[in-house]
This record gives sequence, structure tokens and C-alpha cells, in this order.
Amino acid sequence: MDQTVFLPLFLVAFAAIITLCFVFVLFRKVSRLQINDKRVEEIQDYIHGGAMTFLLREYKLIIPFVFGVGALLAVLGFIPALQGAEGIGWQAAICFVIGACFSALAGWMGMAIATRANARTAIKAREEGMPGALKVAFSGGAVLGLSVAGFGLLGLVGIFLVVYWITNDVHAPVQILTGYSLGCSLIALFARVGGGIYTKAADVGADLVGKLEAGIPEDDPRNPATIADNVGDNVGDIAGMGSDLTESYVGAIISCLTMALFTGLSTKHVLLPILICGVGILASVISVMIVRARNWKDPHKALNASTYIATGLVVVATALLTIFYLGEYKYMFCVIAGLVAGIGVGFVAELYTSDEFASVKEIAEESKTGHGTNIIAGLGVGMRSTWMTVACLGLAITVAYFFGGAYGIALAAVGMLCTVGITVSVDGYGPISDNAGGIAQMSGMPSQVRTITDKLDAVGNTTAAIGKGFCIGSAALTSLAFVVSFVEAVKVRIPDFNIHLNNPCVLVGLLIGAMLPYLFSAMTIGSVGKAANKMVEEVRRQFENDPDILTGKSVPNYNHCIDISTRASLREMVAPGLLAILTPAAVGVIFGAAGLGGMLMGGLVSATMLAVFMANAGGAWDNAKKYVEAGNFGGKGSETHKAAITGDTVGDPLKDTAGPAMNILIKLMSVISVILVPVLVELTPVWDMVVAFFANI
Amino acid sequence: MDQTVFLPLFLVAFAAIITLCFVFVLFRKVSRLQINDKRVEEIQDYIHGGAMTFLLREYKLIIPFVFGVGALLAVLGFIPALQGAEGIGWQAAICFVIGACFSALAGWMGMAIATRANARTAIKAREEGMPGALKVAFSGGAVLGLSVAGFGLLGLVGIFLVVYWITNDVHAPVQILTGYSLGCSLIALFARVGGGIYTKAADVGADLVGKLEAGIPEDDPRNPATIADNVGDNVGDIAGMGSDLTESYVGAIISCLTMALFTGLSTKHVLLPILICGVGILASVISVMIVRARNWKDPHKALNASTYIATGLVVVATALLTIFYLGEYKYMFCVIAGLVAGIGVGFVAELYTSDEFASVKEIAEESKTGHGTNIIAGLGVGMRSTWMTVACLGLAITVAYFFGGAYGIALAAVGMLCTVGITVSVDGYGPISDNAGGIAQMSGMPSQVRTITDKLDAVGNTTAAIGKGFCIGSAALTSLAFVVSFVEAVKVRIPDFNIHLNNPCVLVGLLIGAMLPYLFSAMTIGSVGKAANKMVEEVRRQFENDPDILTGKSVPNYNHCIDISTRASLREMVAPGLLAILTPAAVGVIFGAAGLGGMLMGGLVSATMLAVFMANAGGAWDNAKKYVEAGNFGGKGSETHKAAITGDTVGDPLKDTAGPAMNILIKLMSVISVILVPVLVELTPVWDMVVAFFANI
Repeated sequence: MDQTVFLPLFLVAFAAIITLCFVFVLFRKVSRLQINDKRVEEIQDYIHGGAMTFLLREYKLIIPFVFGVGALLAVLGFIPALQGAEGIGWQAAICFVIGACFSALAGWMGMAIATRANARTAIKAREEGMPGALKVAFSGGAVLGLSVAGFGLLGLVGIFLVVYWITNDVHAPVQILTGYSLGCSLIALFARVGGGIYTKAADVGADLVGKLEAGIPEDDPRNPATIADNVGDNVGDIAGMGSDLTESYVGAIISCLTMALFTGLSTKHVLLPILICGVGILASVISVMIVRARNWKDPHKALNASTYIATGLVVVATALLTIFYLGEYKYMFCVIAGLVAGIGVGFVAELYTSDEFASVKEIAEESKTGHGTNIIAGLGVGMRSTWMTVACLGLAITVAYFFGGAYGIALAAVGMLCTVGITVSVDGYGPISDNAGGIAQMSGMPSQVRTITDKLDAVGNTTAAIGKGFCIGSAALTSLAFVVSFVEAVKVRIPDFNIHLNNPCVLVGLLIGAMLPYLFSAMTIGSVGKAANKMVEEVRRQFENDPDILTGKSVPNYNHCIDISTRASLREMVAPGLLAILTPAAVGVIFGAAGLGGMLMGGLVSATMLAVFMANAGGAWDNAKKYVEAGNFGGKGSETHKAAITGDTVGDPLKDTAGPAMNILIKLMSVISVILVPVLVELTPVWDMVVAFFANI
Repeated sequence: MDQTVFLPLFLVAFAAIITLCFVFVLFRKVSRLQINDKRVEEIQDYIHGGAMTFLLREYKLIIPFVFGVGALLAVLGFIPALQGAEGIGWQAAICFVIGACFSALAGWMGMAIATRANARTAIKAREEGMPGALKVAFSGGAVLGLSVAGFGLLGLVGIFLVVYWITNDVHAPVQILTGYSLGCSLIALFARVGGGIYTKAADVGADLVGKLEAGIPEDDPRNPATIADNVGDNVGDIAGMGSDLTESYVGAIISCLTMALFTGLSTKHVLLPILICGVGILASVISVMIVRARNWKDPHKALNASTYIATGLVVVATALLTIFYLGEYKYMFCVIAGLVAGIGVGFVAELYTSDEFASVKEIAEESKTGHGTNIIAGLGVGMRSTWMTVACLGLAITVAYFFGGAYGIALAAVGMLCTVGITVSVDGYGPISDNAGGIAQMSGMPSQVRTITDKLDAVGNTTAAIGKGFCIGSAALTSLAFVVSFVEAVKVRIPDFNIHLNNPCVLVGLLIGAMLPYLFSAMTIGSVGKAANKMVEEVRRQFENDPDILTGKSVPNYNHCIDISTRASLREMVAPGLLAILTPAAVGVIFGAAGLGGMLMGGLVSATMLAVFMANAGGAWDNAKKYVEAGNFGGKGSETHKAAITGDTVGDPLKDTAGPAMNILIKLMSVISVILVPVLVELTPVWDMVVAFFANI
């Protein structure tokens, strides 16, 4: 066993374990905080119970899929022609199951802490004001963020170490790790799509009857759907977002390993991305520690500081690694290109969705002339925002390719994602603060508490927009790395293979790929509508059956509403899930590897644009409404406000359900395609058979 | 001179001339109908005057562009390396100017007849009822449709004949004809984009103040913007749509000729698309004659009959041509694939936008719960509709490629467009009927007249949706043919050239291409907003300055409103126009031919999806509103109706401005790229220079 391979891997594994220990300490610290308020404890129990029940039922639903896909991978490995093919066989099947379990575990940790930190943030806001509340919320986010990075990295390095220990060959672990990535993708699919449907069904249902029909404010305990709404924030923004970025993180590393292998680079090149991520995870832990050590008054500054510290540490460490370990400093620029692009796409999202900039104000102003002009303005802002995101990604791709070729593109994705620990920490802080505000409202805390949670929440909205931009950018770069791996993987077997634009299969593939994001979005948006309607009926039914609910004398049945959202989202996630899983296989079988490659690229560019458009339009509408509520253009209750609410309603399913689902769609399709490569190259595509059949007549 | 070349071309030229003679006769027949009503004559004069003024000013604005681009083409031809390059040189420059003039002429004819036929349709509806009115409206549409086909084909064949006569070489005319196509594209760009902005600015402006603030009905003569609104229907749906399809028609033929040349096919293959179009134009004339000869009570049946007759004739003639003239019957299937796909995409549009099917009813039902749910439902329907359109196009592409290779794809585009004479006739009938209804209303005709024009208009809305689907489908297929020509054109010069998916320039090109439609849409949607705001201010100003306008005592200043729409649309069309023209050149210079190819494909798939989405969502919202107005879910004036109106307001700029502009964007970019090929292959891309520069350090 080569110590130059073993030692770096061991160090990274150790870093991941240290991180998870730190997660454990943080978890205990937060959950040991006393609540000392019966009402708060009761509400927290509802939210915690609802969230964990959803997660449990979601995981139960996923189990057959995990075993089904795992069994398929194992069985395919017994076909003689496919033996030795990466991502297929019983070893890959085991990796797949481990990936699914680790990703699920990270999601579980995040949910467990988020639904505990929410109440404690509210309590701390009452007891200690801003610094205390901020610390709890940030710690909660950090548990999620470091779990994502820790579990993701530990599983990957663990598998690598074990397989390397057995085979004494660097190639062997890389080949089966694609299965690990697929496992993370499968969890992400269900968590993102199901979570997205859950959260918006509950939100829309609660708002439509509560705010509009019954005229009670947001987060009012008399509204039966209000707990489901708060559960939804965790289901969508904690578990969904976390699993999305776990998938990107793991995917980026694995596509980088694969690429290093296929393009015949050295073992050091194979280990470089893992080492960078090892450095990144430690940088995240250090940054969390530093930020926690101070008492911050301004949450925005605290969160920015955490990002800058981690980024700075990673840049320095990467420079040292590329210069002294690898001996080729040029790869440093690939990593930095990814890091900068990640910050760039986040900044673009902020630029178009923060009310400090012109776009949001424009939407707010257009709301003066009514609902229609508000919507048109929002659509325009979302569409316009695509160009800057493309500029960031395009620059990163060109710089990365310039310095590192195809491997450089994957390395840029690793660079963007190596600080995922801190990125997810910052993102996770948002929904916790949002929940804290809800709990403060429901438990009737004094208004100064609500002021603090509102401040926390406002910053959380900005970080959410930045986080969405980052999720899209990282998904695009990771998928791109996988698509390039896909091409290289086919080339290893068919040297003269390439995806030409004047191949009809590629053309049709491009068209199908570009269409899929639209179909997928239509499905998820439709699901939100259906589920929300069910919620509306239930809330109406409860109000009618027991008029005492509205007077506050009797407690509504929260669990019924939670149950409706849970059932609906679980049922509705199956169809889009199957679409994402089966389409690459079908296109591959019919149009061959070239057609599938075309589909991946068509899907990638179309989904990225659609995701950016939906996320930024949705975020801009949301903040335009808040801008009006802050007293501009007539303020709350005015006609302008009503029009602004319409924009927010439209934007919600776009930015929280359909948009994030795009990330999963493109990553999942590209991972599946990479795994399908050995099957595809053995198979004669249906198209070729038809051509041959007619040629023989 | 070879008679086997000369004779077929001469026959087609003769067919085009016969068609234009028939157009002249029809034009005289319609314009000689007496109006006999002073009020109607006055209104018609306003609309006619406004429309022709707009067209005149638009053409004046275009002249410097025509001469600029023409001069550039001519000058480029003097670069020694570029001599003999197709689409470049003084001959191509002349073709370019001829193309621009002929396309402009067709638009002019259409506008001239449409703004005459509108009043006469209203008069005939009063005097003779449905059959008479239908005949006038259909004849008006036929003048536009047959002008488009006649002028388009005559110019093309004329140039071919003259150049062939001089050079005695089939290759020479084909090489310079790309310039002709570019001429048509340039006119289409301005007509579609400018027309789209004009029509919606006037529409939104008229509705916002008139209907909502002043509470006067649509098409009320007291509204100062009402004439501009009616002018807008002609500017957008007559001149814009006509020039759009002229561009597709000419583009499809020329890309087919180019492809036959580059792939080394015989002269008969070069002549086949021209012959099919010759047959198609005669079939259109015959079909117009047959439909005009009967007295139809049901406009839907009449229009369908015209389409079926023309299609049937073309199928038979194509079969005969491929079997007996070419001797290779397999190409027949390419043409039929295109014809069927053209009808297919139209049918898909109808399926998603007609209130006889589920989608529109679903939007109407969702309007019950408010503005937000109405918008979400419409977005969902638009997104869902993409898959069927892709299925039609994908099938056509595979079938066409299967039977005819790359040439087959271009032949399918020709098949789809060879009956453009009748397709545009049917489309053109819509805005004429719409205008007739407006005139009937404004001149206070009895309600039974309005009932007839409403019936005509309702069918017109369906044909408009089908027409939009057809425009998108044909644009996609034509652009695809051009992109394939582009690849072949580069290959002729650099034999091992290809557009690989793992070339970073191609990847970045794909991303840029996919983004452009969004940026372009954001620009045009923003322009509508700006222009509409100006219109709103003007209408408010007139109402304030002269309160007698609202009582009907004084006549509002219609011309001021027409002037505002004209100025705004002309100013706003420049920026998107420059974007469409300059981006291919910039991408080509920076990323080379491969990057440009990637951009074209990214743009093609992204724009097609976005166009289908916007056109069908817009059409569905429009008809959902009408469905509610017909008395469903509460009918006119209900809250449901208000929500449905919001959807219609949002859909208008999407379906009439941004959506149709997509067609132009992709066609124009691909034509320019084909023309740029010889320049690009001589040039070292900036990317390569940078790479070389750093490699030398």
C-alpha cells in the first residue's frame, strides 16, 4: 500500500471525522438550551414532530427505490460485457446504498437541529437579544452545513480507503464511486421535489384561507395550517437544500476523480480534489468557530465574515497544495475560478432580488398599475438576470478549461463547492430564523422579540436568494463536469466517439433535453396547485365544523394539515422522479450515447436558464412585496400591495418548488448517464436498428 | 444554357407571376367594394393612415441598416481571401437589397389590403351577413398570403435565373442567394419586433385607462388610443407575421439549396425545393379560388377546407415530382414529414389554447381563487405544451434525416412552408375580422353585425394560435436547416471541422445561446412596458385637458396616440435588433466557428421552448378570459373575471411581442452565421490567440 496515497486520504477522513465530532458538540450545545416556556415548547413539539414524521415517511417511501436501483446496479454487474464497468456491479450497488444513507443522515441531522434551534432562537431573542439569538440560529445552520460536508466527504473517502486497501489500485475506488454519487442524487431528488411541493402547498393553503378568507395574520395559532407551514420551511429549505448541495458536493468531487482517471492524469491529480475538500471542510469548521466566538449585533456582517474567512483559508491552502503537493500551480486558477464564480452567481441573485437594487423597486412600482404589470415586470427581471449568471459560469468554464482542460472544469466545480460546509450553514440559518419568528408570533411573545426575529429573517431572505443562486450555479457546473466525464467515458471505449451537432440523434436529443425542464416544472407546479387545494379544503372544513377555532377557544387540528401536506407531496413526487430517472435510459436506448449526450447538454442549458429565471423572478417578487409593505407606494393594504401579493404568490412555487427541482433534474440525469455508459456502448440503439432494417429491405 | 435547369425555373417564376397577377385582381376586387357609410369611412381612413404611416416610418428607419449591411457585404467581398465565398461580395449585397425590398413589398401589400378589407368586412356583414363578410376577410388575408409567397418566390427564382443565365453554373446563384435570405430576415426583425411592441403598447395603453379607469368599453371611439389599438393589430399581425413567414419560406428554400450544393447532390436535388414551392404556390391559389367560389356559413369550415385542399394538392404533386422528376421517391417522405409537422404544431397550439379543451378550462377554474392561481395555472399550461411541440418537431427531424440526411431536414422545412400562401391567408383573415369588429363597434352598427364579426373574430383567435405555433415550428426547422448548412459550409473549407460537446468554446457558446432568448425577451417585454406607460400618460392627458371627450362631444386626438406608439416602437426595436445582429459576429470572433455553432444550437433549442411556452400560455390566458366572459365561473364583472383579465394582460406581451420575436432571433442569427462562415475560417478566434499567447510565455 502506497503511503503517498494512503496518508492524504487518511488525513481527509480524519478532517471529516473531526468535523462530525464538532457537529455533535454543537448539536448538544444547542439542544441543551432550556426553553422554559410551555407554549413555546408545545409549538416546537408540533413542528419538530411534523417535520420528523414527514422525513420518516419520505425515507420509507424511498427505501424501495433505493433497493430497486441498488439491485438493478448489482444485477447489471453480472452481465459479462459490463464487468469492470464503473458505477455498475455489486460494489457500486453498495456504494449507492451508502450514498443514499449518508445523504439521508445529513438531512436527518439538519432537520433534527433546525426544529430544535428555531424555538431556542426565539427564547434567546427574548432573553439575550440579537447576539444570543443569532448565535443559536447560526449554530443550527452550522450543524446542517457541517453535516452535509462531513457525511458527504466521510462516505466518499471511507469507500475510497477501503477499496484502495483491498485492491491497492487507485482506479478501482474511482470506478465504483459513481454509485455513491447516484445514492446522494436519489435522496436529493425526493427531498427537493417532495420538500418543494410540501412547503408551498402548506404555505399557499395557509395564506389563501387564513389571510384572505378568515382575515387572520400570518403565523396565527388559530390557523390549522400554520404548523404545517412552519414544518414546510424546514422540509423544503433545510432537508431539500441540504440534500441538493450534498449531491452537488459529492458529484463535483467524483466527476473530478473520474475525469482525472479517464484523461490519464497522475494519482496526485486524482487526490487533489479530495485534499481541497478536506481543506475546505476544516476551513468551514474554523470559520464557524471564529464567528461563534464573537457577539455579533449585525447578522449580515457575521454571515459575510464566515464566508470570507472560509474562502480566504481555502484559497491560501489551494495555492500551497497546487504548488508544493502537485507541483503544477496552474490548477490553482481552476479552483479559484470556481470559488469566485460561486460567489459571483450568489451576488447576481442578490442584485436582482434585493430591494436595495433597482429591479425590485421597479417591480414594486409596476404594482401601482395592477396585478398584470406586476407579473410582467417580475418576468422581465427574472429573464434579464440570466445574462449575468451566464457570464459568471462562462468565465469560470473558460478560465478553468484554459488552465486545466476538461479536468479543470471539474476542478472548478470542486472549488465552488469545497466550502459547502459554510455555504449551507449560512443558508440553513435562514429557515431557522423564519421559524423562530413564527414561534414568537404564535406564542405571543412581546413585539421587541418579533423585531429581532424579523431582522434575522430579513437577512435570511437575502442569504436564501444567494443560496439559490449558488445551488443553481454549482448544479450547472457539476452537471457540466459529469457531461464531460460522460463523453470521456464513452471515448475510453469507443475512441472515435464524439457528439457532433450534425448528427440527427444529437439534434433530437438537444430538443428533448431542452424541453424536459419545462415539462418537469409544469408537473411540480401542478402538484403544488393540487396539494394546496386539498389544504384549503381542510382548513375551510375545520373552520366550519368548529367555529370556536376562530375565537381561539378551541385548538385546531394541526396534525390533519401536516398529514395532508405530507401525503400529497409524497404522492406527487413520484411522477417527476420517474421522469428524471427513466428519460436518460429511454433516450440512450433509442438514440444511443450521442443522442443522450445531446439531451444532457440541451437539458443543462435549458434548465439552468429556467432555474435562474424562476429563482430570481420569485425572489424579486417576494422582496417587492416586502418593499411595498415597508410603506412604499401605498404600503400595506393598498391596491399596490394586493398586486404585489399576487407576484409573491406566483413566485413562490417558481422559486421554492420548480426552480430548485431543476438542479436535481440535471444532476440526476447526468449521473445516471455516466453510469449507463458501459451498457450503452454494448447496446445497438433502436435508431441504428431501424436504419439498418430499412437499409436491408 | 441547360434547358433542364432553365425550364423548371422558368415555370416556377411563371407560377409566381401568375400568383401575383391573381393578388392584383383580388386587391382590386376588395378595394372597389363601396363603403357607403361616412362614419365607417372616416374610421377606416384613420386606421389605414396610421398603419401606412407606421410602415413608412419603419421602412425609413430600416433604410440605413439595409445600406449599411449591404455595403459591408460588398466591401467584405473585396478581401482577397473571401472572394468566391457565398453570401459575401457585391452580388450578394445586391441580392440582400432585393430581398429586403421584396419582403418589404409583401408587407406593404398586406397592410394596404388589410386596412381596406377591415371596413369592407364590417359593411358586408351588415349588408349580406356571414357569407359576404367571410369572403371579404378571407380575400384580404389571401392578398397578404399570396403576396408573401409570390414576392418571396419570384425574387428568389428571378435572381437564380439571371445569375444562371450569366454564369451558366447552378452553383453560382445558390452561393449568393444567402444574401437574399438575409434581406428578408432584416425586414422581419424590424417588422416583428417593432410591430410587436407597437401593438401591445397601444393595446395595454388603451385598456388600462379606457376600460379600467374611464370605464368605457373596448373599441369605444371616445378612447384616444382606440385607433392606435386597431392600427396595432395590423402592424403586428399582418406586417409582422407576414414578414416572419416570408423569412422562414425563403430561408427554408435557400438552406435546402445550400445543403444540396455542399453535400454534393445533383442539380435536380437543387431544383427540387424550388419546384415544390412552385407547386405549393399554385396549390394555394387554386385553394383560394375554390374557397372563394362558395358561400360559407361557417368560417371554421371554410378555412380548414382551404388548408386541406392546398395540402392535398402539394402531397400529390410532390409524390409525382420525386418519383418522375427526381427518380428517388424517398425524398417525398421528408416533404410530407414537414407538412405533417406543420399541421401538428398548429394542432398542439389549438389543443392548449382553445376553450374546447381542458387546459383553458383549468386556467379559468383556477381564476376563481384569484390572480395568483390564474397566473400559475397559465404558466403551467404553457410549460406543459412544449412536449408535444417537441414531439412533432423531433419526429419530423428523425423521419426527414432518415430518408434524406441533412438535405432531408432542409427539405422538411420546405415541405412545411411550401403552402405558406394559404397558411398566411388563413392567419391574415384573423386581424382583418378583429378590425372589422372594432369598426362595427366604433361606428355604432347594429348588434347583429357585431355578432357576425364576433363569430369571425372567434375563429380568428383560433387561427392566430395555430398560426403562432406554425411560425415557431417553421422557424425552428428553418434555423435548424441553416445550422446544419453552417456546419457543412465550414466543413467544405476545414474538412475535419466539427462541433464537439467537449470543446469549451462550444460549451460556452451553448450557454450564451440559451441565455440570449431570455435577454431578448426581457428587452422586448420591457419596451412594451415603457411604451405602454407613455400611452397611458397621453390618454390621461387628453381626458383631463378636454372633459368633452368622455361625453362624446369632442373627438379625441387619435393621431397623437398613433404617433406615440410609432415612435416608441421604432426607438425600442433598435437595441434588440443590434443584439441579434452583433452577438453572432462577436461570439464567432471570440470563440470561433465551433463556439458560434454551439451558440446557434443553444439559442435554437432555448428559443423554441421559450417561444412555445410564451405563445401557448398567452393564448390560453386569452381564451380563459373569454371563457369566463361567456358566463362561466361567474361571468363578466365577477372576481373570477378580474383574475382572468390579469392573465390576459400578462399573456399579451408574451404571445404577441416576446414570443414571435424568438422566431426572428434564431433565424436571423443562423443566417448571419452562415454568411460569416468564410470570414470566420480565415480568422483566428480570440480564444485561440489567448491560448497561444499564454502557451508561448
